Amino acid sequence: MRQVRYNVATSLDGYIADAGGGFEWIPHDPAVDFAAIFARVDTILIGRRSFEMVQEGSAPPWGRNMRVYVFSRTLRPEAYPDVTVVGENAATQVAALRNEPGGGDIWLFGGGQLFSGLLGAGQVDRVEATIVPVLLGGGVPLAASGVPLTSLRLLDTYRYPSGMVTLTYAVDQRAV
Amino acid sequence: MRQVRYNVATSLDGYIADAGGGFEWIPHDPAVDFAAIFARVDTILIGRRSFEMVQEGSAPPWGRNMRVYVFSRTLRPEAYPDVTVVGENAATQVAALRNEPGGGDIWLFGGGQLFSGLLGAGQVDRVEATIVPVLLGGGVPLAASGVPLTSLRLLDTYRYPSGMVTLTYAVDQRAV
Repeated sequence: MRQVRYNVATSLDGYIADAGGGFEWIPHDPAVDFAAIFARVDTILIGRRSFEMVQEGSAPPWGRNMRVYVFSRTLRPEAYPDVTVVGENAATQVAALRNEPGGGDIWLFGGGQLFSGLLGAGQVDRVEATIVPVLLGGGVPLAASGVPLTSLRLLDTYRYPSGMVTLTYAVDQRAV
Repeated sequence: MRQVRYNVATSLDGYIADAGGGFEWIPHDPAVDFAAIFARVDTILIGRRSFEMVQEGSAPPWGRNMRVYVFSRTLRPEAYPDVTVVGENAATQVAALRNEPGGGDIWLFGGGQLFSGLLGAGQVDRVEATIVPVLLGGGVPLAASGVPLTSLRLLDTYRYPSGMVTLTYAVDQRAV
């Protein structure tokens, strides 16, 4: 079964973007090998707000050959021919993607609302949180309110020279 | 100079207590050696709400010989003869404690509001966050809103068998 991986950078106090939606507090650490981290990824899941933020940048942070699914009830699919807009039944759609043949991973890019909905539906396999050594005091939460109480199982820790630490967890589906 | 250490357990999404103020989600890990962690501590700083929560328990989580400072504008000092109630000028009082002779550490017990105020005043030396492998989706935040944007410097990581990970940071006072 394909793995849905929620891979995010977060402040120590649990925010994935600052109060203005910005990411300037995330250092550019050359030791972070995104190519290796995402070598197995062939599919991206992204919420509407996060997608719009990515669109504002110069280039999306993923490669050209990715399949991109944007979850939104308001986006007009014909305006975004390069992606698949999913308007309804997000959990069912993701369950189908997880059950597709092939071993590629699925990167749940964010944001916190999409994560929370899919987590509650038992459709998230891993949480990979890179803790940035900063306190923000507010912003976009790692997990939207309404996320169910969820036990995680620590699989791995990795410390970067910049002081970032990646904590990789499996979601214990029995606890959902 | 004595070190003020904010030592807390937090969910991965940055909450130090659940929405009901509870701590049942923090596992009792026999590998956590509190005696060793607090061997150098001789002074406790605690906010009023946290103090009242501790009072409701069977015994405070610190030893008998600690000096305890409770920060509150409303508590009547004469009702709590075993502690020092600090009603005004918290930062000045803590600065004086840090400058006292002797090498004892000062444990900033919490909560998030006291932490935020002292952090903004440059009176916190270390943040020692033990990340519990759980998502809560809401509760009492690690850092109250109003905490200044603060860069931390990672000093140490420690992984417990239970899957908890302690991340120890120095507060870079130049960034405050």
